[in-house]
Amino acid sequence: MAAPLDFYFDFSSPYGYFGSTRIDDLAARHDRAVNWHPILLGVVFKTTGGAPLAEIPLKGEYSLHDFARTARFRQIAYRQPPVFPVSTQAAARAVLWARTEAGTAKSVELAKALYRAYFVDGINISEAAEVAKIGASLGFDPAALGEGITSAPIKDALRSEVEQAMQRGVFGSPFVIADGESFWGFDRFEQLDYFLKNGKI
Amino acid sequence: MAAPLDFYFDFSSPYGYFGSTRIDDLAARHDRAVNWHPILLGVVFKTTGGAPLAEIPLKGEYSLHDFARTARFRQIAYRQPPVFPVSTQAAARAVLWARTEAGTAKSVELAKALYRAYFVDGINISEAAEVAKIGASLGFDPAALGEGITSAPIKDALRSEVEQAMQRGVFGSPFVIADGESFWGFDRFEQLDYFLKNGKI
Repeated sequence: MAAPLDFYFDFSSPYGYFGSTRIDDLAARHDRAVNWHPILLGVVFKTTGGAPLAEIPLKGEYSLHDFARTARFRQIAYRQPPVFPVSTQAAARAVLWARTEAGTAKSVELAKALYRAYFVDGINISEAAEVAKIGASLGFDPAALGEGITSAPIKDALRSEVEQAMQRGVFGSPFVIADGESFWGFDRFEQLDYFLKNGKI
Repeated sequence: MAAPLDFYFDFSSPYGYFGSTRIDDLAARHDRAVNWHPILLGVVFKTTGGAPLAEIPLKGEYSLHDFARTARFRQIAYRQPPVFPVSTQAAARAVLWARTEAGTAKSVELAKALYRAYFVDGINISEAAEVAKIGASLGFDPAALGEGITSAPIKDALRSEVEQAMQRGVFGSPFVIADGESFWGFDRFEQLDYFLKNGKI
């Protein structure tokens, strides 16, 4: 099996969520694994001068329309969350904690559950209590999860993920790096698929 | 024939150029005409806080790579212009002048020639003299074109195009409005195609 793909995402990113519903299947078609990397776009935006889409004049209104339309077009379950965007530290840290506690597969399962909770069920995943409940539904001890996401090693791990991502040029969500080639946006999954099939574009 | 599509573009936008190579064929497949609207993204960015892609940290470097890769992927002739981005007032005004002088078809021909000159032949279309030469190659009188693009009515016409575009929510290039539905980006031509076929998404 060739090298895994690196999949970077922010839990408040609709296009990141769309990507999360497809990346594993896409990679598997080319016999690839996926490393899931939760990041904090808010930190990245301090460098790039970016801003949450929904807050940009003209673009913001269009984006809300495009989220829902793209979800319909790609047949992905989606409801615009009542609170949007949200801080995603708790969710991102929970995934890193779960990886340490229970391994990669289980942490990816938690990531998918968190995305679904936010973008389908409208649960405010910026709240640690909500994140703990979602963890509990997957068999994690909610008290341990709650402690884990405020622990220094997990905070450091997330800081390190974000720093490494920026060093690799990551500036948005979703962002995939495959064999050194970067793909920004759910829009680029078609090119990613072509690249994995042909080894070049 | 149903209502024409409105196709908004800036002459310094690679994705606008990509769109310009496809929009007429796409529309024709659905028995639609296209109104071509050159706009100035620089003016729009004063409202949206946007910036030329290539100047944004991290995103800029990626974008240059993505322009060329997307051109290869979609089999569109492309060479990164040596001067990029450029001011596009002269080119945009020339297209509006040509529309007044010689009608829609001829002005679209000029728009395509200007895009090709910039994104294939590397000609700096921010210079009025270069724009006049390209006009001359299509049979326009270069002296009349040179005068036209500095005339008050043409300056007003461009200002008006940009204002109307922003009133309709246009904030990027390419941007297509079809039956009141907005599509931003060459990435959204697939959804535009689907929408024109089915009347909804």
